[in-house]
Amino acid sequence: MKKFMLITLGEELLLGLTRNGHLTYIGNRLRQRGVTLHSCYTISDKDEDILEQFQFCWERADALITTGGLGPTVDDRTKETIANFLGEGLVFDPVAMEAIEERFARLGRAVSENNRKQAYRPETAETIRNDRGTAPGIWWEKNGKTLIMLPGPPNELQPMFENQVLPRLEAMGFVDDAEDYLQIKTIGIGESQLEIDLQPIFEPYPDLEVAFCAHQGQVDCRIRFIDSEPRMDELLAIANSCKQLLGEAFLGLGHDPVVAVVSKMLTARGQSLALAESCTGGFMANAFTNLSGASEFFKGGIVSYSNEAKRDLLGVPSELIQRHTAVSEEVAIAMASGVAEKLESDFALSVTGYAGPSGGTTDNPVGTVYIGLHSPLGSWATRYNWTTNRETIKSRALNAALDLLRRELLATPFNEKSANQDPSDESGGILPSIS
Amino acid sequence: MKKFMLITLGEELLLGLTRNGHLTYIGNRLRQRGVTLHSCYTISDKDEDILEQFQFCWERADALITTGGLGPTVDDRTKETIANFLGEGLVFDPVAMEAIEERFARLGRAVSENNRKQAYRPETAETIRNDRGTAPGIWWEKNGKTLIMLPGPPNELQPMFENQVLPRLEAMGFVDDAEDYLQIKTIGIGESQLEIDLQPIFEPYPDLEVAFCAHQGQVDCRIRFIDSEPRMDELLAIANSCKQLLGEAFLGLGHDPVVAVVSKMLTARGQSLALAESCTGGFMANAFTNLSGASEFFKGGIVSYSNEAKRDLLGVPSELIQRHTAVSEEVAIAMASGVAEKLESDFALSVTGYAGPSGGTTDNPVGTVYIGLHSPLGSWATRYNWTTNRETIKSRALNAALDLLRRELLATPFNEKSANQDPSDESGGILPSIS
Repeated sequence: MKKFMLITLGEELLLGLTRNGHLTYIGNRLRQRGVTLHSCYTISDKDEDILEQFQFCWERADALITTGGLGPTVDDRTKETIANFLGEGLVFDPVAMEAIEERFARLGRAVSENNRKQAYRPETAETIRNDRGTAPGIWWEKNGKTLIMLPGPPNELQPMFENQVLPRLEAMGFVDDAEDYLQIKTIGIGESQLEIDLQPIFEPYPDLEVAFCAHQGQVDCRIRFIDSEPRMDELLAIANSCKQLLGEAFLGLGHDPVVAVVSKMLTARGQSLALAESCTGGFMANAFTNLSGASEFFKGGIVSYSNEAKRDLLGVPSELIQRHTAVSEEVAIAMASGVAEKLESDFALSVTGYAGPSGGTTDNPVGTVYIGLHSPLGSWATRYNWTTNRETIKSRALNAALDLLRRELLATPFNEKSANQDPSDESGGILPSIS
Repeated sequence: MKKFMLITLGEELLLGLTRNGHLTYIGNRLRQRGVTLHSCYTISDKDEDILEQFQFCWERADALITTGGLGPTVDDRTKETIANFLGEGLVFDPVAMEAIEERFARLGRAVSENNRKQAYRPETAETIRNDRGTAPGIWWEKNGKTLIMLPGPPNELQPMFENQVLPRLEAMGFVDDAEDYLQIKTIGIGESQLEIDLQPIFEPYPDLEVAFCAHQGQVDCRIRFIDSEPRMDELLAIANSCKQLLGEAFLGLGHDPVVAVVSKMLTARGQSLALAESCTGGFMANAFTNLSGASEFFKGGIVSYSNEAKRDLLGVPSELIQRHTAVSEEVAIAMASGVAEKLESDFALSVTGYAGPSGGTTDNPVGTVYIGLHSPLGSWATRYNWTTNRETIKSRALNAALDLLRRELLATPFNEKSANQDPSDESGGILPSIS
């Protein structure tokens, strides 16, 4: 396997002002092509830092990717610094300049003087066309190594990586066309317990590499054979044994998050979902609608952040809220069945709780969350408590709600005939759709 | 300034399966204490990779922080590897073991054998108590350097960093109590244009360090004096000149994202907001409700993902959708005024569009988004088109919607007396609140 290293430049990453999305994106895309990124170095764009890190990586990598530092402003000096280190000057590239001029003309803006410096490249390098911004990338094969420099904005970098960098890496034999490992996703079981449970299955394979990754109530387990051609059949057989052993705690093989698993189950069953959110505040609806195709089953959601919204939009009686407070089992159930009725959905999830930092009562302190589930068989609610911060409570609540629905769907195998069928409906459940 | 380096361990980061949230969190917390993290190294937890990187950093850093690799499973070997490199063995720490046992007892679970190894520490190191998980951290002062090892799960790491690591670093004089720079946030102006516009203001200060960071239609500009004690008054005077020059494109000083700016404006005015989302699907409501205190002004939102939801929950006439399609100026306006009416809010924002990858028409291709704004003065909508991916379209739409509302709020200075005042209401606008 070729050794890929990544240098992500930008003080804003080190200051915690911007997430290192390039590591996630590039790591992900290489992984899907059978390559594990060896390492990622996040540094400032100071000359001396760039130089020291570049030298370290250039000695060790087969392919080195850099992101950022190609902008038009004075603090973007990466290209100059690296070209200088490799003993080349920068030359003006008229084709790159033309692309920049075209872009500005299209936007009806004038090319500013500091955009001109973006059209320079090291003498023996090529530029990588950027259709969404002014900074072209750099493709440079030198001393038997490949250097790929990409601009910082993700919406510029990503299509360049996808359409120009990956195909070229594939042609060079640097990347494959598929992953070389299998991931077993679990939910509702701790990391150390999972290792103990699965150990007997893995034991007969001394060359099996096993890695665990815990996140928000879930643990993923990746398996692959060390120093071997991909043996996917064997991995699948091992994964199947894990599935049998884990039962409902087995979420799936591969990378689908629980929201995708639930979405596929609903789509396959032709059943619909509605959401009523208080403390998750749209986070749950957003998770579903981040997936293309959500409109197949997702009717909509109500973010009932005020008691008025719970009453007017979900039909939760004011007396119920007065008697039990808005954060209660009773209100969670009324929210779920209320939204299911309003939107005529088969299933509904509701969330009401104290995400903090303020709020909460003695009985229901900050971190208390009630999750309601409405199904064709009835409505009920479950109480949770997580002692953590606001955003983590929202994430935990999302995963818990999704898992409640997932287990409910697993427990009620679907009889296709019963879908959308109202016993009093003579048409056999096929109603004219209303646009 | 002391040199801080961070090593984030975990193949899941390199495979793009998990975001490097530790870099964001630790970078952010150090920045708020006047320290710029020097660099961050993301590597696998293979022994040889840990060794090589540790050696590199240990030679250069004053304080080195590692995250991850302290779990109970066999692939967590960081502590052993580093202790070995620094020539010490691991010793069993009965206090750490007691904390682990307490935790398991509280959860009603048995301590498994592989949890025992988490109670080991290098001979001359101390453990850092972990109240939310089994892996204690390590605090190790050796050879004039400080090594801080923290466990991977963010909800364990963050309180440990906050309550134990930062106070200790402060006592050692390694961190300050405030930032040493000023950030000017702008919106609706390009990076190179911004640099040209602001250049004359910065020019008289040769020792002023200026850095730009562009993201999603916004550009931030950080200024600080190089090699100087903080001169905050001068920075504020410079920032004030920038503000005058930028007008409405000036978003604010500091770190408030546009959603926080808008939230503060609404809270100060005592006016309320409701949301109607189609293609953003809850993303906008989630942005507001991620902020504590949103319930002060946020009445609620409707995710009207289906036409039925637009009709039944927002009162958008079916005929309007049939005539103009759901992605149209007319429907955007009807959604905004509809949700304002349902939730009796002063302002409302609506979003309807094609986030892709499928959908769209010849006139309104994928990436077309209409944003509706309802205010006490009327309702209107604006058309946008972004040729990018689904999640970026959602982000762009959020920022555009927030900026529309922000500019509207700026353009209509608020007369407190007119708030909630219905001319026909004899009580002078003070109505009994309904719970």
